[in-house]
Amino acid sequence: MSDENDKNTRISDLGEFGLIEHLTRKVQLHNESSIRGVGDDAAVMDYSGRRVLVTSDLLLEGIHFNLMYTPLKHLGYKAVIVNISDVLAMNGFPEQVVVSLGVSGKFGLKHIEDLYEGIHLACDKYHVDLVGGDTTSSVTGMTISVTAVGSVEPEKAVFRGGSRVNDIICTTGNLGGAYMGLQLLEREKEVFKKRPGVQPDLSGYDYILERQLKPEARADIIRLLGEKGIVPTSMIDISDGLSSDVLHLCHHSNLGCKIFQEKIPLHKETEKMGQELDIDPTTAALNGGDDYELLFTIPTSEYDKIKEEEKILPVGHMTSPDFGCYMVSTSDHQIELKAQGWSKQKG
Amino acid sequence: MSDENDKNTRISDLGEFGLIEHLTRKVQLHNESSIRGVGDDAAVMDYSGRRVLVTSDLLLEGIHFNLMYTPLKHLGYKAVIVNISDVLAMNGFPEQVVVSLGVSGKFGLKHIEDLYEGIHLACDKYHVDLVGGDTTSSVTGMTISVTAVGSVEPEKAVFRGGSRVNDIICTTGNLGGAYMGLQLLEREKEVFKKRPGVQPDLSGYDYILERQLKPEARADIIRLLGEKGIVPTSMIDISDGLSSDVLHLCHHSNLGCKIFQEKIPLHKETEKMGQELDIDPTTAALNGGDDYELLFTIPTSEYDKIKEEEKILPVGHMTSPDFGCYMVSTSDHQIELKAQGWSKQKG
Repeated sequence: MSDENDKNTRISDLGEFGLIEHLTRKVQLHNESSIRGVGDDAAVMDYSGRRVLVTSDLLLEGIHFNLMYTPLKHLGYKAVIVNISDVLAMNGFPEQVVVSLGVSGKFGLKHIEDLYEGIHLACDKYHVDLVGGDTTSSVTGMTISVTAVGSVEPEKAVFRGGSRVNDIICTTGNLGGAYMGLQLLEREKEVFKKRPGVQPDLSGYDYILERQLKPEARADIIRLLGEKGIVPTSMIDISDGLSSDVLHLCHHSNLGCKIFQEKIPLHKETEKMGQELDIDPTTAALNGGDDYELLFTIPTSEYDKIKEEEKILPVGHMTSPDFGCYMVSTSDHQIELKAQGWSKQKG
Repeated sequence: MSDENDKNTRISDLGEFGLIEHLTRKVQLHNESSIRGVGDDAAVMDYSGRRVLVTSDLLLEGIHFNLMYTPLKHLGYKAVIVNISDVLAMNGFPEQVVVSLGVSGKFGLKHIEDLYEGIHLACDKYHVDLVGGDTTSSVTGMTISVTAVGSVEPEKAVFRGGSRVNDIICTTGNLGGAYMGLQLLEREKEVFKKRPGVQPDLSGYDYILERQLKPEARADIIRLLGEKGIVPTSMIDISDGLSSDVLHLCHHSNLGCKIFQEKIPLHKETEKMGQELDIDPTTAALNGGDDYELLFTIPTSEYDKIKEEEKILPVGHMTSPDFGCYMVSTSDHQIELKAQGWSKQKG
């Protein structure tokens, strides 16, 4: 099927099975563990002697993404990234993904191809095989469910629980940028709604927009930790914000924590956008989420191994549970860390 | 939290993480391969020396289920069953499931607990561990994504391709019942819409209603085949109807097939409902779907091993690809088998 024909092809012309064949026709399996991919009742993998990791995420239009400002290619990319990030957060590497898609009548084949282009791009970049998927019609909008499968050596699997008192809490990059990118997109959406002729003004904010629309997962950090011979005592990826995610580590490890505001890494665009929108960038880092940096703890005895690494940034340490979970502000106040609520909606 | 309190608890009172903890608090891991379950970035499994099977299905309100006549407990049960059935169709056994849920504001905690009650029931019955899940808010209705993980010995994995000419096509139970159950539910829904006071008349049709609302997966057949030392040459589960699903076996095996109408097993309630609604029960069997029986092929040389088994029912045989894919009707006409279209909507 040529690209020219694609544009005029309706999904119904292909049929459900034709659609999946069409979307996955270029998929080649690269990982030795990928025995059989798309086109059977289940994908088949082989992982002798390793721990198999499986994680699944559901992305819903109107909750997790807004197609008014999210290009479908970016959305497909991000849908894979967020799952890859969960596998990395176990100290493992992703090897396969399975994608399920629900699409309503407002989408044509070209839309779904764009989405899959992003899915394929993320798979290629992170050496992950797309091994399964189905598509179904939907009454309303788009639903994407991605399951990622990976593996890790048994003794290297890292959980959320496992930290000890005084372990150093590290992150792997600046925080709050994805949230600020989202606020910018939301602002321009409102402007556009009121005055549809006006082009959105996104200039000078490439970085935070990319953090929101096309995030990356930190496979490089897992490789680096492996090279340094470090197995973190606990780890999570920052999908809900530093505050929620460090609280997960504390909860599962039955410990408290002390984070230092001055140590929280912020990008200059995050700070600039914060000024423009009157949002405290530290609040964005704590509660914004969607950054997909890793957050992990290591014993103080391991700190020397990574203290020269620019990619690994200490932000605080674990404490006894009696202490509670606090951030020490730049003005030396202790601020209790809170989890994000259930009903946070993005986009 | 007592049951009495549950009824008055809003989802927002628990928070997202509280909700998952609440819903999975009774989960115990039974399978040796289940290393770590709900509550981390990914579930962890171990399957030394076996093939790992992963399958995922997305169920959308208004497409795959209608909550006007689908009890949530049944829905949760069925959501697990359809995925278990896909693992069985590879000749493997399911061991874990991961559940992702999107729910809009119209659902309260009690609703989600009912759904999870069905999920837990199916997991218990089929000895499957619930090892992961997340919940998210949704703009519209309910979305359920279930991923099932299982395993099979490498030499016993059965794919859709692999049939040879003259292999016998077998199914494992009567077909079309789930479809007829759906038609009955749809009829009573229409009656109820016009005259809301009228109680639905579902008496005498318990069997086909159960086929639609609370189907089972044929783990017993996989065990039986194992006991008999039979590895089918190809296999699929009947989720889209005999016609679509035998066409999958033909397509992947690059063969044709001949099915005999008189051999297609029909339940007496399916026939009775067919008369009442003026729907040909054979058409329901061919195109209805949702029966979750297995459909597999075995060489003629293996037939003696299963010919006494009441659970295994031959319906035809594979042919050379030139022959095409046909059903021989009771009046001895050859009717070409067709796949179901993309836009089939249930409920």
